[in-house]
Amino acid sequence: MKGWLKIVGLGPGAEAMVTPEVSAALADATDVVGYVPYVERVAPRPGLVRHGSDNREEIRRAEQALQMTADGHRVVVVSSGDPGVFAMAAALFEALEAAGSDWRALDIQVLPGISAMLAASARLGAPLGHDFCCLNLSDNLKPWALIEKRLRLAAEADLAMAFYNPRSRARPEGFGRALQVLREVCGPRRPIMFARAVSTPQETLRVTTLDEATPDMADMRTLVMVGSSQTRYLEYHGGAWVYTPRSAS
Amino acid sequence: MKGWLKIVGLGPGAEAMVTPEVSAALADATDVVGYVPYVERVAPRPGLVRHGSDNREEIRRAEQALQMTADGHRVVVVSSGDPGVFAMAAALFEALEAAGSDWRALDIQVLPGISAMLAASARLGAPLGHDFCCLNLSDNLKPWALIEKRLRLAAEADLAMAFYNPRSRARPEGFGRALQVLREVCGPRRPIMFARAVSTPQETLRVTTLDEATPDMADMRTLVMVGSSQTRYLEYHGGAWVYTPRSAS
Repeated sequence: MKGWLKIVGLGPGAEAMVTPEVSAALADATDVVGYVPYVERVAPRPGLVRHGSDNREEIRRAEQALQMTADGHRVVVVSSGDPGVFAMAAALFEALEAAGSDWRALDIQVLPGISAMLAASARLGAPLGHDFCCLNLSDNLKPWALIEKRLRLAAEADLAMAFYNPRSRARPEGFGRALQVLREVCGPRRPIMFARAVSTPQETLRVTTLDEATPDMADMRTLVMVGSSQTRYLEYHGGAWVYTPRSAS
Repeated sequence: MKGWLKIVGLGPGAEAMVTPEVSAALADATDVVGYVPYVERVAPRPGLVRHGSDNREEIRRAEQALQMTADGHRVVVVSSGDPGVFAMAAALFEALEAAGSDWRALDIQVLPGISAMLAASARLGAPLGHDFCCLNLSDNLKPWALIEKRLRLAAEADLAMAFYNPRSRARPEGFGRALQVLREVCGPRRPIMFARAVSTPQETLRVTTLDEATPDMADMRTLVMVGSSQTRYLEYHGGAWVYTPRSAS
Protein backbone atom coordinates (compact mmCIF):
# COMPACT_ATOMS: atom_id res chain seq x y z
CA MET A 1 0.00 0.00 0.00
CA LYS A 2 1.28 3.45 -0.87
CA GLY A 3 1.21 5.80 2.09
CA TRP A 4 0.46 9.49 2.08
CA LEU A 5 0.74 12.37 4.50
CA LYS A 6 -1.69 15.25 4.71
CA ILE A 7 -0.98 18.13 7.07
CA VAL A 8 -4.39 19.67 7.65
CA GLY A 9 -6.10 22.53 9.48
CA LEU A 10 -9.21 21.74 11.53
CA GLY A 11 -10.22 25.40 11.74
CA PRO A 12 -10.84 27.20 15.02
CA GLY A 13 -13.29 24.70 16.54
CA ALA A 14 -16.72 24.58 14.90
CA GLU A 15 -17.47 21.59 12.65
CA ALA A 16 -19.11 24.02 10.21
CA MET A 17 -15.71 25.60 9.52
CA VAL A 18 -13.90 22.36 8.60
CA THR A 19 -13.41 22.28 4.82
CA PRO A 20 -14.75 19.31 2.84
CA GLU A 21 -11.25 18.34 1.65
CA VAL A 22 -10.06 18.08 5.25
CA SER A 23 -13.11 16.00 6.21
CA ALA A 24 -12.42 13.70 3.24
CA ALA A 25 -8.77 13.28 4.26
CA LEU A 26 -9.83 12.35 7.80
CA ALA A 27 -12.40 9.86 6.47
CA ASP A 28 -9.72 8.14 4.39
CA ALA A 29 -6.90 8.15 6.97
CA THR A 30 -5.47 5.19 8.87
CA ASP A 31 -3.69 7.42 11.41
CA VAL A 32 -4.25 10.85 12.91
CA VAL A 33 -1.33 12.55 14.60
CA GLY A 34 -1.27 15.75 16.66
CA TYR A 35 -1.51 17.58 19.96
CA VAL A 36 -3.99 15.74 22.23
CA PRO A 37 -6.88 18.25 22.20
CA TYR A 38 -6.77 18.50 18.39
CA VAL A 39 -6.61 14.73 17.86
CA GLU A 40 -9.64 14.45 20.15
CA ARG A 41 -11.61 16.63 17.73
CA VAL A 42 -11.49 13.70 15.26
CA ALA A 43 -14.21 11.15 16.06
CA PRO A 44 -12.90 7.62 16.69
CA ARG A 45 -13.86 4.93 14.15
CA PRO A 46 -12.74 1.39 13.29
CA GLY A 47 -9.60 1.46 11.16
CA LEU A 48 -8.39 4.81 12.50
CA VAL A 49 -5.60 5.07 15.09
CA ARG A 50 -5.39 8.40 16.92
CA HIS A 51 -1.89 9.35 18.12
CA GLY A 52 -2.14 12.24 20.57
CA SER A 53 1.02 13.83 21.92
CA ASP A 54 2.01 16.70 24.17
CA ASN A 55 2.51 20.30 23.25
CA ARG A 56 6.14 21.14 22.34
CA GLU A 57 6.56 17.64 20.90
CA GLU A 58 6.23 18.98 17.35
CA ILE A 59 9.42 17.58 15.88
CA ARG A 60 9.04 14.10 17.40
CA ARG A 61 5.44 14.07 16.18
CA ALA A 62 6.53 15.09 12.67
CA GLU A 63 9.16 12.30 12.60
CA GLN A 64 6.54 9.78 13.71
CA ALA A 65 4.20 10.93 10.91
CA LEU A 66 6.95 10.68 8.28
CA GLN A 67 7.90 7.17 9.46
CA MET A 68 4.30 5.94 9.34
CA THR A 69 3.89 7.41 5.85
CA ALA A 70 7.04 5.59 4.68
CA ASP A 71 5.54 2.41 6.19
CA GLY A 72 2.49 2.76 3.92
CA HIS A 73 0.01 4.41 6.30
CA ARG A 74 -2.40 7.14 5.28
CA VAL A 75 -1.48 9.78 7.83
CA VAL A 76 -3.22 13.02 8.71
CA VAL A 77 -1.35 15.50 10.91
CA VAL A 78 -3.89 17.82 12.50
CA SER A 79 -3.48 21.40 13.67
CA SER A 80 -6.08 23.77 14.98
CA GLY A 81 -6.79 26.67 12.62
CA ASP A 82 -4.47 26.60 9.61
CA PRO A 83 -1.45 24.24 9.61
CA GLY A 84 0.81 26.87 8.02
CA VAL A 85 0.30 29.60 10.65
CA PHE A 86 2.34 28.80 13.79
CA ALA A 87 1.36 25.16 13.55
CA MET A 88 2.52 21.75 12.31
CA ALA A 89 3.43 22.41 8.65
CA ALA A 90 6.72 24.20 9.39
CA ALA A 91 7.66 21.55 11.97
CA LEU A 92 6.96 18.83 9.42
CA PHE A 93 9.22 20.40 6.82
CA GLU A 94 11.95 20.92 9.42
CA ALA A 95 11.79 17.19 10.18
CA LEU A 96 11.68 16.35 6.47
CA GLU A 97 14.82 18.39 5.81
CA ALA A 98 16.64 16.77 8.73
CA ALA A 99 15.64 13.28 7.53
CA GLY A 100 17.66 13.60 4.31
CA SER A 101 16.69 13.92 0.66
CA ASP A 102 15.48 10.29 0.23
CA TRP A 103 12.46 11.14 2.35
CA ARG A 104 11.31 13.84 -0.05
CA ALA A 105 9.86 11.21 -2.37
CA LEU A 106 6.97 10.75 0.10
CA ASP A 107 3.51 11.85 -1.03
CA ILE A 108 2.94 14.97 1.09
CA GLN A 109 0.19 17.59 0.89
CA VAL A 110 -0.79 20.56 3.05
CA LEU A 111 -4.52 21.34 3.28
CA PRO A 112 -5.35 24.82 4.57
CA GLY A 113 -7.85 25.58 7.33
CA ILE A 114 -9.67 28.63 8.69
CA SER A 115 -7.03 30.21 10.90
CA ALA A 116 -7.89 31.60 14.33
CA MET A 117 -6.93 35.00 12.95
CA LEU A 118 -9.50 34.89 10.14
CA ALA A 119 -12.22 33.45 12.38
CA ALA A 120 -11.65 36.07 15.09
CA SER A 121 -11.54 38.82 12.50
CA ALA A 122 -14.90 37.68 11.07
CA ARG A 123 -16.57 37.64 14.50
CA LEU A 124 -15.37 41.17 15.23
CA GLY A 125 -16.14 42.67 11.81
CA ALA A 126 -13.13 43.37 9.60
CA PRO A 127 -10.19 44.51 11.76
CA LEU A 128 -7.75 43.05 9.19
CA GLY A 129 -9.45 44.81 6.26
CA HIS A 130 -6.28 46.73 5.37
CA ASP A 131 -2.55 45.83 5.57
CA PHE A 132 -1.69 43.72 8.62
CA CYS A 133 0.89 41.48 10.23
CA CYS A 134 0.69 38.27 12.20
CA LEU A 135 3.21 37.71 14.99
CA ASN A 136 3.84 34.91 17.45
CA LEU A 137 4.47 36.53 20.86
CA SER A 138 6.01 33.41 22.40
CA ASP A 139 9.72 33.68 23.12
CA ASN A 140 10.18 29.90 23.14
CA LEU A 141 11.81 29.90 19.71
CA LYS A 142 13.07 33.46 19.34
CA PRO A 143 14.59 36.09 21.65
CA TRP A 144 12.33 38.67 23.28
CA ALA A 145 14.39 41.51 21.70
CA LEU A 146 13.30 40.34 18.24
CA ILE A 147 9.64 40.29 19.27
CA GLU A 148 9.91 43.82 20.60
CA LYS A 149 11.72 45.01 17.46
CA ARG A 150 8.96 43.56 15.28
CA LEU A 151 6.24 45.17 17.39
CA ARG A 152 7.89 48.59 17.01
CA LEU A 153 8.43 48.26 13.25
CA ALA A 154 4.89 46.95 12.67
CA ALA A 155 3.50 49.92 14.59
CA GLU A 156 5.70 52.32 12.63
CA ALA A 157 4.34 50.76 9.43
CA ASP A 158 0.83 51.35 10.85
CA LEU A 159 -0.22 47.75 10.28
CA ALA A 160 -3.11 46.10 12.08
CA MET A 161 -1.68 43.19 14.09
CA ALA A 162 -2.77 39.70 15.03
CA PHE A 163 -0.91 37.96 17.86
CA TYR A 164 -0.70 34.22 18.44
CA ASN A 165 0.41 32.76 21.77
CA PRO A 166 0.09 36.05 23.63
CA ARG A 167 0.59 34.51 27.04
CA SER A 168 2.02 31.20 28.10
CA ARG A 169 1.97 29.75 31.59
CA ALA A 170 5.77 29.51 31.48
CA ARG A 171 6.29 33.20 30.61
CA PRO A 172 3.33 35.23 31.84
CA GLU A 173 5.29 38.51 31.91
CA GLY A 174 5.92 38.73 28.14
CA PHE A 175 2.46 39.90 27.20
CA GLY A 176 2.55 42.71 29.77
CA ARG A 177 5.77 43.94 28.18
CA ALA A 178 4.19 43.72 24.72
CA LEU A 179 1.27 45.86 25.91
CA GLN A 180 3.70 48.43 27.29
CA VAL A 181 5.59 48.66 23.98
CA LEU A 182 2.32 48.98 22.08
CA ARG A 183 1.02 51.76 24.36
CA GLU A 184 4.26 53.62 23.81
CA VAL A 185 4.21 53.40 20.02
CA CYS A 186 0.46 53.33 19.24
CA GLY A 187 -0.87 55.56 22.02
CA PRO A 188 -3.36 54.67 24.75
CA ARG A 189 -6.59 54.87 22.71
CA ARG A 190 -5.70 52.29 20.04
CA PRO A 191 -8.29 49.46 19.83
CA ILE A 192 -7.24 46.04 21.08
CA MET A 193 -9.37 42.92 20.76
CA PHE A 194 -9.31 39.64 22.66
CA ALA A 195 -10.98 36.70 20.91
CA ARG A 196 -10.96 33.50 22.94
CA ALA A 197 -11.96 30.04 21.71
CA VAL A 198 -13.72 31.49 18.67
CA SER A 199 -16.56 29.36 17.24
CA THR A 200 -16.65 27.05 20.29
CA PRO A 201 -19.20 27.11 23.14
CA GLN A 202 -16.53 28.87 25.26
CA GLU A 203 -16.17 31.76 22.83
CA THR A 204 -15.65 35.20 24.36
CA LEU A 205 -14.93 38.48 22.60
CA ARG A 206 -13.71 41.65 24.23
CA VAL A 207 -13.01 44.98 22.52
CA THR A 208 -11.16 47.66 24.47
CA THR A 209 -8.27 50.12 24.17
CA LEU A 210 -4.58 49.72 24.97
CA ASP A 211 -4.82 51.82 28.14
CA GLU A 212 -7.59 49.58 29.50
CA ALA A 213 -5.97 46.29 28.45
CA THR A 214 -4.40 44.06 31.11
CA PRO A 215 -2.30 40.91 30.63
CA ASP A 216 -4.92 38.65 32.25
CA MET A 217 -7.34 39.38 29.38
CA ALA A 218 -5.40 36.83 27.31
CA ASP A 219 -4.59 33.19 27.86
CA MET A 220 -3.25 30.42 25.61
CA ARG A 221 -6.55 30.12 23.73
CA THR A 222 -6.81 33.85 23.00
CA LEU A 223 -6.07 35.51 19.68
CA VAL A 224 -5.24 39.16 20.26
CA MET A 225 -5.60 41.85 17.61
CA VAL A 226 -4.55 45.49 17.65
CA GLY A 227 -5.97 47.96 15.15
CA SER A 228 -4.03 50.36 12.96
CA SER A 229 -4.42 54.13 13.40
CA GLN A 230 -7.39 53.91 11.00
CA THR A 231 -9.36 51.16 12.77
CA ARG A 232 -12.92 52.17 13.74
CA TYR A 233 -15.74 50.98 16.03
CA LEU A 234 -19.39 50.83 15.11
CA GLU A 235 -21.39 50.38 18.28
CA TYR A 236 -24.76 48.74 18.14
CA HIS A 237 -27.20 47.40 20.69
CA GLY A 238 -25.34 44.53 22.33
CA GLY A 239 -21.89 44.98 20.86
CA ALA A 240 -19.55 46.73 18.46
CA TRP A 241 -18.20 46.01 15.01
CA VAL A 242 -14.52 46.77 14.57
CA TYR A 243 -13.17 47.39 11.09
CA THR A 244 -10.19 48.85 9.31
CA PRO A 245 -11.18 50.80 6.19
CA ARG A 246 -9.70 49.87 2.84
CA SER A 247 -8.00 53.20 2.23
CA ALA A 248 -5.12 54.94 4.01
CA SER A 249 -3.19 58.14 3.48
CA MET B 1 -39.94 38.06 6.95
CA LYS B 2 -36.81 39.07 8.84
CA GLY B 3 -33.85 39.66 6.56
CA TRP B 4 -30.25 38.83 7.25
CA LEU B 5 -26.89 39.60 5.70
CA LYS B 6 -23.95 37.22 5.61
CA ILE B 7 -20.63 38.38 4.20
CA VAL B 8 -18.90 35.17 3.23
CA GLY B 9 -15.65 33.86 1.75
CA LEU B 10 -15.85 31.33 -1.07
CA GLY B 11 -12.22 30.30 -0.67
CA PRO B 12 -9.69 30.43 -3.50
CA GLY B 13 -11.68 28.45 -6.07
CA ALA B 14 -12.07 24.74 -5.34
CA GLU B 15 -15.47 23.57 -4.07
CA ALA B 16 -13.62 21.34 -1.58
CA MET B 17 -12.34 24.46 0.21
CA VAL B 18 -15.76 26.07 0.75
CA THR B 19 -16.72 25.68 4.42
CA PRO B 20 -20.02 23.98 5.30
CA GLU B 21 -21.35 27.13 7.01
CA VAL B 22 -20.81 29.13 3.82
CA SER B 23 -22.52 26.44 1.73
CA ALA B 24 -25.45 26.48 4.16
CA ALA B 25 -25.76 30.26 3.94
CA LEU B 26 -25.82 30.08 0.13
CA ALA B 27 -28.46 27.33 0.22
CA ASP B 28 -30.70 29.50 2.41
CA ALA B 29 -30.19 32.83 0.63
CA THR B 30 -32.68 34.73 -1.53
CA ASP B 31 -29.98 37.00 -3.01
CA VAL B 32 -26.29 36.71 -3.76
CA VAL B 33 -24.33 39.91 -4.30
CA GLY B 34 -20.74 40.36 -5.50
CA TYR B 35 -18.20 40.85 -8.23
CA VAL B 36 -19.40 39.02 -11.37
CA PRO B 37 -16.88 36.14 -11.45
CA TYR B 38 -17.50 35.36 -7.75
CA VAL B 39 -21.30 35.48 -8.09
CA GLU B 40 -20.95 33.06 -11.00
CA ARG B 41 -19.33 30.54 -8.68
CA VAL B 42 -22.73 30.17 -6.98
CA ALA B 43 -24.94 27.76 -8.97
CA PRO B 44 -28.28 29.25 -10.08
CA ARG B 45 -31.44 27.79 -8.52
CA PRO B 46 -35.12 28.76 -8.26
CA GLY B 47 -35.65 31.33 -5.52
CA LEU B 48 -32.13 32.74 -5.72
CA VAL B 49 -31.36 36.03 -7.46
CA ARG B 50 -27.72 36.59 -8.39
CA HIS B 51 -26.62 40.25 -8.48
CA GLY B 52 -23.23 40.50 -10.18
CA SER B 53 -21.48 43.85 -10.38
CA ASP B 54 -18.21 45.27 -11.64
CA ASN B 55 -14.92 45.47 -9.81
CA ARG B 56 -14.43 48.76 -7.92
CA GLU B 57 -18.18 48.92 -7.27
CA GLU B 58 -17.67 47.75 -3.68
CA ILE B 59 -19.48 50.56 -1.87
CA ARG B 60 -22.50 50.61 -4.19
CA ARG B 61 -22.69 46.82 -3.88
CA ALA B 62 -22.55 47.06 -0.07
CA GLU B 63 -25.36 49.66 -0.05
CA GLN B 64 -27.47 47.43 -2.27
CA ALA B 65 -26.91 44.48 0.09
CA LEU B 66 -27.86 46.56 3.15
CA GLN B 67 -31.04 47.83 1.45
CA MET B 68 -32.15 44.33 0.45
CA THR B 69 -31.50 43.09 3.99
CA ALA B 70 -33.64 45.92 5.39
CA ASP B 71 -36.34 44.89 2.90
CA GLY B 72 -36.41 41.39 4.42
CA HIS B 73 -34.19 39.48 1.98
CA ARG B 74 -31.70 36.84 3.04
CA VAL B 75 -28.59 38.27 1.43
CA VAL B 76 -25.15 36.71 0.95
CA VAL B 77 -22.31 38.97 -0.12
CA VAL B 78 -19.60 36.81 -1.68
CA SER B 79 -15.87 37.41 -1.87
CA SER B 80 -13.17 35.13 -3.16
CA GLY B 81 -10.88 33.82 -0.42
CA ASP B 82 -11.72 35.38 2.94
CA PRO B 83 -14.10 38.38 3.09
CA GLY B 84 -11.98 40.15 5.72
CA VAL B 85 -8.70 40.20 3.75
CA PHE B 86 -8.82 42.93 1.07
CA ALA B 87 -12.39 42.00 0.22
CA MET B 88 -16.02 42.93 0.88
CA ALA B 89 -16.25 42.93 4.70
CA ALA B 90 -14.43 46.28 5.17
CA ALA B 91 -16.46 47.85 2.33
CA LEU B 92 -19.67 46.64 3.95
CA PHE B 93 -18.82 48.21 7.31
CA GLU B 94 -17.79 51.45 5.59
CA ALA B 95 -21.24 51.56 3.98
CA LEU B 96 -22.90 50.60 7.27
CA GLU B 97 -21.18 53.46 9.09
CA ALA B 98 -22.14 55.96 6.37
CA ALA B 99 -25.77 54.77 6.46
CA GLY B 100 -26.26 55.99 10.04
CA SER B 101 -26.77 54.21 13.33
CA ASP B 102 -30.37 53.01 12.63
CA TRP B 103 -28.96 50.53 10.14
CA ARG B 104 -26.84 48.81 12.76
CA ALA B 105 -29.90 46.91 14.00
CA LEU B 106 -29.67 44.68 10.91
CA ASP B 107 -28.75 41.02 11.43
CA ILE B 108 -25.21 40.89 10.01
CA GLN B 109 -22.61 38.12 10.17
CA VAL B 110 -19.20 37.60 8.60
CA LEU B 111 -18.28 33.99 7.70
CA PRO B 112 -14.57 33.40 7.10
CA GLY B 113 -13.11 31.60 4.09
CA ILE B 114 -9.79 30.06 3.09
CA SER B 115 -7.83 33.10 1.97
CA ALA B 116 -5.65 33.03 -1.16
CA MET B 117 -2.70 33.56 1.15
CA LEU B 118 -3.38 30.42 3.20
CA ALA B 119 -4.18 28.32 0.12
CA ALA B 120 -1.02 29.43 -1.70
CA SER B 121 1.06 28.88 1.40
CA ALA B 122 -0.28 25.31 1.72
CA ARG B 123 0.53 24.48 -1.91
CA LEU B 124 4.09 25.74 -1.51
CA GLY B 125 4.80 24.17 1.89
CA ALA B 126 4.88 26.57 4.82
CA PRO B 127 6.37 29.91 3.72
CA LEU B 128 4.29 31.71 6.39
CA GLY B 129 5.38 29.34 9.16
CA HIS B 130 6.95 32.18 11.18
CA ASP B 131 6.00 35.87 11.64
CA PHE B 132 4.63 37.46 8.47
CA CYS B 133 2.72 40.40 7.03
CA CYS B 134 0.07 40.73 4.39
CA LEU B 135 0.10 43.85 2.18
CA ASN B 136 -2.09 45.09 -0.65
CA LEU B 137 0.25 46.44 -3.35
CA SER B 138 -2.47 48.36 -5.17
CA ASP B 139 -2.16 52.14 -4.94
CA ASN B 140 -5.84 52.68 -5.73
CA LEU B 141 -6.68 53.48 -2.11
CA LYS B 142 -3.34 54.53 -0.65
CA PRO B 143 -0.30 56.47 -1.88
CA TRP B 144 2.65 54.60 -3.34
CA ALA B 145 4.99 56.17 -0.75
CA LEU B 146 3.09 54.34 2.02
CA ILE B 147 3.39 51.01 0.20
CA GLU B 148 7.13 51.51 -0.19
CA LYS B 149 7.50 52.52 3.48
CA ARG B 150 5.68 49.37 4.58
CA LEU B 151 7.81 47.16 2.33
CA ARG B 152 10.99 48.60 3.85
CA LEU B 153 9.79 48.27 7.45
CA ALA B 154 8.49 44.72 6.90
CA ALA B 155 11.87 43.75 5.44
CA GLU B 156 13.68 45.37 8.34
CA ALA B 157 11.47 43.36 10.71
CA ASP B 158 12.49 40.25 8.70
CA LEU B 159 8.88 39.19 8.17
CA ALA B 160 7.78 36.83 5.42
CA MET B 161 5.37 38.75 3.18
CA ALA B 162 2.22 37.98 1.23
CA PHE B 163 1.13 40.49 -1.42
CA TYR B 164 -2.39 40.92 -2.77
CA ASN B 165 -3.08 42.79 -6.02
CA PRO B 166 0.55 42.83 -7.08
CA ARG B 167 -0.17 44.15 -10.55
CA SER B 168 -3.20 45.85 -12.00
CA ARG B 169 -3.79 46.62 -15.65
CA ALA B 170 -4.17 50.30 -14.73
CA ARG B 171 -0.80 50.52 -12.93
CA PRO B 172 1.54 47.87 -14.29
CA GLU B 173 4.70 49.73 -13.16
CA GLY B 174 4.04 49.49 -9.41
CA PHE B 175 5.06 45.87 -9.03
CA GLY B 176 8.38 46.49 -10.80
CA ARG B 177 9.11 49.23 -8.27
CA ALA B 178 8.15 46.91 -5.41
CA LEU B 179 10.60 44.28 -6.70
CA GLN B 180 13.35 46.90 -6.85
CA VAL B 181 12.74 47.97 -3.25
CA LEU B 182 12.72 44.35 -2.12
CA ARG B 183 15.99 43.55 -3.93
CA GLU B 184 17.57 46.54 -2.23
CA VAL B 185 16.48 45.61 1.28
CA CYS B 186 16.36 41.79 1.14
CA GLY B 187 19.21 41.08 -1.28
CA PRO B 188 19.04 39.29 -4.64
CA ARG B 189 18.85 35.68 -3.40
CA ARG B 190 15.71 36.01 -1.26
CA PRO B 191 13.00 33.48 -2.32
CA ILE B 192 9.92 34.87 -4.04
CA MET B 193 6.87 32.80 -4.96
CA PHE B 194 4.12 33.37 -7.49
CA ALA B 195 0.92 31.41 -6.90
CA ARG B 196 -1.73 31.98 -9.55
CA ALA B 197 -5.35 30.81 -9.41
CA VAL B 198 -4.58 28.36 -6.63
CA SER B 199 -6.90 25.32 -6.41
CA THR B 200 -8.43 25.98 -9.85
CA PRO B 201 -7.63 24.15 -13.12
CA GLN B 202 -5.52 27.20 -14.10
CA GLU B 203 -3.28 26.92 -11.04
CA THR B 204 0.40 27.71 -11.58
CA LEU B 205 3.16 27.93 -8.99
CA ARG B 206 6.59 29.42 -9.52
CA VAL B 207 9.40 29.62 -6.98
CA THR B 208 12.40 31.81 -7.79
CA THR B 209 14.64 34.50 -6.27
CA LEU B 210 14.32 38.28 -6.27
CA ASP B 211 17.09 38.73 -8.86
CA GLU B 212 15.31 36.39 -11.28
CA ALA B 213 11.81 37.80 -10.66
CA THR B 214 10.21 40.01 -13.33
CA PRO B 215 6.96 42.00 -13.12
CA ASP B 216 5.24 39.88 -15.78
CA MET B 217 5.36 36.84 -13.46
CA ALA B 218 2.33 38.33 -11.64
CA ASP B 219 -1.11 39.32 -12.82
CA MET B 220 -4.35 40.18 -11.02
CA ARG B 221 -4.97 36.53 -10.09
CA THR B 222 -1.51 36.02 -8.58
CA LEU B 223 -0.69 35.93 -4.89
CA VAL B 224 2.98 36.80 -4.40
CA MET B 225 4.99 35.77 -1.36
CA VAL B 226 8.51 36.72 -0.31
CA GLY B 227 10.39 34.71 2.28
CA SER B 228 12.16 36.03 5.36
CA SER B 229 15.93 35.67 5.72
CA GLN B 230 15.26 32.23 7.27
CA THR B 231 13.05 30.79 4.51
CA ARG B 232 14.37 27.53 3.02
CA TYR B 233 13.85 25.34 -0.09
CA LEU B 234 13.60 21.58 -0.08
CA GLU B 235 13.96 20.38 -3.64
CA TYR B 236 12.43 17.08 -4.66
CA HIS B 237 11.82 15.36 -7.94
CA GLY B 238 9.34 17.60 -9.73
CA GLY B 239 9.32 20.62 -7.44
CA ALA B 240 10.38 22.30 -4.24
CA TRP B 241 8.85 22.83 -0.84
CA VAL B 242 9.36 26.29 0.61
CA TYR B 243 9.14 26.77 4.34
CA THR B 244 10.04 29.24 7.05
CA PRO B 245 11.26 27.51 10.22
CA ARG B 246 9.55 28.20 13.51
CA SER B 247 12.59 29.64 15.24
CA ALA B 248 14.60 32.79 14.64
CA SER B 249 17.56 34.47 16.32
